[in-house]
Amino acid sequence: MSIPDVVRLHPTPEQYAYAFGGREPLLTVRPGNLVELTTEDCFGGLVRGVDDLPSAVCTFPFLNPVTGPIAVEGAEPGDTLAVHFVDIRPARDWAVSATFPLFGALTATHTTAMLHPALEERVWMYDVDVAAGVCRFSARRSDLTVELPLDPMHGTVGVAPAAGEVMMSITPAAHGGNMDTPEMRAGTTAYFPVNVPGAMLSIGDGHARQGEGEVCGTAVEAAMETVVVIDLVKGLAPASPRLESDTHLMTTGSARPLEDAFRMSQHDLVTWTADLFDLEALDAYQLVSQAGLAPAGNVVDTNYTMLGKLPKSLLDGRTAYDGLHDRLRGVAEEYLRSR
Amino acid sequence: MSIPDVVRLHPTPEQYAYAFGGREPLLTVRPGNLVELTTEDCFGGLVRGVDDLPSAVCTFPFLNPVTGPIAVEGAEPGDTLAVHFVDIRPARDWAVSATFPLFGALTATHTTAMLHPALEERVWMYDVDVAAGVCRFSARRSDLTVELPLDPMHGTVGVAPAAGEVMMSITPAAHGGNMDTPEMRAGTTAYFPVNVPGAMLSIGDGHARQGEGEVCGTAVEAAMETVVVIDLVKGLAPASPRLESDTHLMTTGSARPLEDAFRMSQHDLVTWTADLFDLEALDAYQLVSQAGLAPAGNVVDTNYTMLGKLPKSLLDGRTAYDGLHDRLRGVAEEYLRSR
Amino acid sequence: MSIPDVVRLHPTPEQYAYAFGGREPLLTVRPGNLVELTTEDCFGGLVRGVDDLPSAVCTFPFLNPVTGPIAVEGAEPGDTLAVHFVDIRPARDWAVSATFPLFGALTATHTTAMLHPALEERVWMYDVDVAAGVCRFSARRSDLTVELPLDPMHGTVGVAPAAGEVMMSITPAAHGGNMDTPEMRAGTTAYFPVNVPGAMLSIGDGHARQGEGEVCGTAVEAAMETVVVIDLVKGLAPASPRLESDTHLMTTGSARPLEDAFRMSQHDLVTWTADLFDLEALDAYQLVSQAGLAPAGNVVDTNYTMLGKLPKSLLDGRTAYDGLHDRLRGVAEEYLRSR
Amino acid sequence: MSIPDVVRLHPTPEQYAYAFGGREPLLTVRPGNLVELTTEDCFGGLVRGVDDLPSAVCTFPFLNPVTGPIAVEGAEPGDTLAVHFVDIRPARDWAVSATFPLFGALTATHTTAMLHPALEERVWMYDVDVAAGVCRFSARRSDLTVELPLDPMHGTVGVAPAAGEVMMSITPAAHGGNMDTPEMRAGTTAYFPVNVPGAMLSIGDGHARQGEGEVCGTAVEAAMETVVVIDLVKGLAPASPRLESDTHLMTTGSARPLEDAFRMSQHDLVTWTADLFDLEALDAYQLVSQAGLAPAGNVVDTNYTMLGKLPKSLLDGRTAYDGLHDRLRGVAEEYLRSR
Repeated sequence: MSIPDVVRLHPTPEQYAYAFGGREPLLTVRPGNLVELTTEDCFGGLVRGVDDLPSAVCTFPFLNPVTGPIAVEGAEPGDTLAVHFVDIRPARDWAVSATFPLFGALTATHTTAMLHPALEERVWMYDVDVAAGVCRFSARRSDLTVELPLDPMHGTVGVAPAAGEVMMSITPAAHGGNMDTPEMRAGTTAYFPVNVPGAMLSIGDGHARQGEGEVCGTAVEAAMETVVVIDLVKGLAPASPRLESDTHLMTTGSARPLEDAFRMSQHDLVTWTADLFDLEALDAYQLVSQAGLAPAGNVVDTNYTMLGKLPKSLLDGRTAYDGLHDRLRGVAEEYLRSR
Repeated sequence: MSIPDVVRLHPTPEQYAYAFGGREPLLTVRPGNLVELTTEDCFGGLVRGVDDLPSAVCTFPFLNPVTGPIAVEGAEPGDTLAVHFVDIRPARDWAVSATFPLFGALTATHTTAMLHPALEERVWMYDVDVAAGVCRFSARRSDLTVELPLDPMHGTVGVAPAAGEVMMSITPAAHGGNMDTPEMRAGTTAYFPVNVPGAMLSIGDGHARQGEGEVCGTAVEAAMETVVVIDLVKGLAPASPRLESDTHLMTTGSARPLEDAFRMSQHDLVTWTADLFDLEALDAYQLVSQAGLAPAGNVVDTNYTMLGKLPKSLLDGRTAYDGLHDRLRGVAEEYLRSR
Repeated sequence: MSIPDVVRLHPTPEQYAYAFGGREPLLTVRPGNLVELTTEDCFGGLVRGVDDLPSAVCTFPFLNPVTGPIAVEGAEPGDTLAVHFVDIRPARDWAVSATFPLFGALTATHTTAMLHPALEERVWMYDVDVAAGVCRFSARRSDLTVELPLDPMHGTVGVAPAAGEVMMSITPAAHGGNMDTPEMRAGTTAYFPVNVPGAMLSIGDGHARQGEGEVCGTAVEAAMETVVVIDLVKGLAPASPRLESDTHLMTTGSARPLEDAFRMSQHDLVTWTADLFDLEALDAYQLVSQAGLAPAGNVVDTNYTMLGKLPKSLLDGRTAYDGLHDRLRGVAEEYLRSR
Repeated sequence: MSIPDVVRLHPTPEQYAYAFGGREPLLTVRPGNLVELTTEDCFGGLVRGVDDLPSAVCTFPFLNPVTGPIAVEGAEPGDTLAVHFVDIRPARDWAVSATFPLFGALTATHTTAMLHPALEERVWMYDVDVAAGVCRFSARRSDLTVELPLDPMHGTVGVAPAAGEVMMSITPAAHGGNMDTPEMRAGTTAYFPVNVPGAMLSIGDGHARQGEGEVCGTAVEAAMETVVVIDLVKGLAPASPRLESDTHLMTTGSARPLEDAFRMSQHDLVTWTADLFDLEALDAYQLVSQAGLAPAGNVVDTNYTMLGKLPKSLLDGRTAYDGLHDRLRGVAEEYLRSR
């Protein structure tokens, strides 16, 4: 095994995109390429201290910048784009989180419209220590600090939507986007349906770590230095993005209400299980019901995201996408050893 | 430490209850008592083969029998009932699962009313091997079998509801009930709000194992031989049941829609975190957002159940309920050693 | 036509019920009887001025008193209880409305749990002028007054639930209960599924008028002097309560989320339409889709209520329940003439 | 009063748009202009008989064509675009409705994902008699025909979205779009928030009539000859589209879940009421709660739409937008007299 070509993508500030769809590629790669890229945090790097309120320093709709789009040669509608995360590394020794007016799971929002005034907008700065593998929470109204394990991931990964739509980068949907699941970490392969020629992959919204649900609306937001391997499976486009780690097959559903996000993710897990085990639908439904997991991704964005997870220990030698995850994992290890 | 008094409760068939509330106790215990009890499966043991369709052999509303109620001396409204699961052991070498007409997450139901005919009603029989720690799924439309780890738990645990209400045992709500979370396993302590004198605890609906969400509507349903320690905390009644394992603090929300179940569980996790860390509310909201987990319990019952989970590794010596879980864990270990 | 027997039911304060189910009848009537009854307002008459905050003067769970239950001779599970509202008349020259902490459509609630403090609890007193047919809104933070037409109705009408359940009177469900639809006015016949022998009808929660959705959580709450004719249809129990006015057939769905309440009400409207027109299901679905109405009942209670409505002008001579509404209308007119 | 300039817009087949946003104007008008335009039906006129199944004769995403965009001189982000419907007239003597696989309120869908096979796809042809003011439903599985009153309206009316988004024409949201409310009929003025220079108005999806909720997913779909007056209010952009008829002020909320659509519509009705009556927010909440209506628009599209309605009889001389509706009504009458 040899390391494939490595391509670099470091956008200038004016090159960031804020939407999926409707934009020319910043870069074109071939299936199999490794891409080293940088991403800015969801506030565009403008929130640098507790007095930098996002609503004051950021300007709608210039929120949640993404790096891309990256065109993939040969990708056609109906294909499956595989993106394996080799490395996701915080680029700074700090990260930031915040409440934002009328955004979050435990607050009135523009759609869950209420007569309450918005909750206080507040910023939290985190120390990030990559070597020690921790980030440090500091309370704002007391002296408490709590060390939390680093678990870097990308909240926003996706391709251009179907039907010529252009969607803000804060929206998760069938094209991926802002799913905000902590499972999008290094070691994971994500599979996206290709909707337009070239697929048009974009990546952003790094989190030093994130709880399930992203309850307050933001994670430990961090600029990232990220490495991915990009590959292509002809045909087989999933209904919604799928993920695969060394231990689990994962499906996603991004929709509102939350039960529909759940239904979509479990429906696709049943479909995938039926396919892998050559099972009739109700038999797969039964197996998933007893063996599956169902964690929340986000319950704050314009669509909510739920995940379905099946342990690969059940597969007994069966592999998804003809073993692509393992092959990409091998490429990643080779790259990391050689770096 | 000595083993507390052990009380036994083995209901006769006609003694099972099918509701929470409105019923005289089968047994009265003192705080600290160990109770060895038996529970029947959710079908009352009537589904014993793939041709025993639940809709034919069971009679509404005689579904989901529970063992109890157990009155606890000294329990008053506003108190907290602690139930520590010492052991949950399948009573038979088989268990059963089924689809049931118009019940489940991926089917039309009586409330998610649609014009589709009901999905097929189908029964799956599982072999249960307690010694080996596995149960075996057998597909009905192919020869596939899959061994799954045993992970015994109770789907239905709760107390009498407030306001004189009587609720079918299939409903989860603030009183507990049919929350159907796999976290209700041996080693876990559950905390319930006491609504009536004596609390009136009932337990049923054993599962040899269950996936998160209980997607098809039933788990690997099994009669159980179960041991609990029951204890009482004066005052401090939580809004909804809480759970504690050796590794996590857990909150629950049982409601519809699913986002409300999520909101309730996360709201209580913020409240609990604020209390344990002496944090102001938004600071606790921030910490939970980055450190918490959010798995589904059930997304099929008359209310859905979501969980919030916080790793106890963050607590740095802080304890919930003055260390009650650890004390009950100690009692459980002593009992198990002596058995 | 002669006026049927008139029975009177004027509960003493201690006779009011606060739940459906689990209670002996206050009165037993025969099918065809007219009943003159009185109901107290949802606050038990305790909120009599703008300083009487409901949370201070009322005691949970003694909210929303209902008059009943009334047992109906011969009513058996599976039958249909018909309740025709002959007259609903405010008993006082004032009525009252209020916001209540964590209750309403545009506020955080116990289930739509949020970190906002509760909205202000505030009381509004209305002048009621039955002769003029108006009630007068007076703003609390300005001098504005607005005259609104009287349109008296009952928010809470229902029978004992199935399965031995006892439900607080504030909950609407398949048994009726607190549906809070302005369609429950004089001239309307309501049809309920009978779940227990005697049906056990209770009525309360009079409103001098109410907007659709009952947005702030309470209507123009008024004690009432009400007259109903009670009748019985053997069999034919609907899935959820139905209503019939001189102009419309109406179905209800009471559930959460709101789309399920909508689905239930429209599903039953399709079922009813298919039955009346002898139409296949998809043909009825099509006709309802073009001819039906879908107003909200309440979007604040423990279940939400939506209505489906079909204009009777389409029926071309077809009648529901063999013309029962017209017959009860005739009885009502005879009674009103003779009074 | 004189009739303003009349402009005509009759798109060729290739000129139809299928999205809001991202497109150059077909026409530019001045505020005050009358526009006579034609629209094709939601199937692009391709479903012309019961054997023309939409999924066979239509090609995704070429569904729901809209006429436009029409740029309005001087319209700037933050302004309010007023569109008064002068006339909406079916262009043919037939119209069509259909079920479509996995689309509708009483069926599994791509998001309310279930294991049921799709309901049957079926087409209904309607006779349209403009002179008699009726359209005729014919059942497909029986000989039943039912005459329904014509009540022509447009399901899809909106402007370019904010943030550079491009949305399929089947989506309703803050920009309007496919709200599918029967209130969008001749005699109504609709007010839209302007998001981009020129506003970029598009109109399509005519319905000979539609029930509330558009339950089966389609209305009585018809090509239309429509006349609108377009006007501009500087500033005052509403959060979501508002409507005004001679009798009611109306607000809309387009979102999922349905309770959020309800909350948005009622929140804006409270805001509008507070503004018109100079009322404090809770006082307006109270008044709306007793006087408002809350019908469904659609409960089938990618977002659901609910309406809030307040009778103008309460306004006692107050007018919205400085009486603009009455002025446009006057223009419309003048035009209709002169035609």
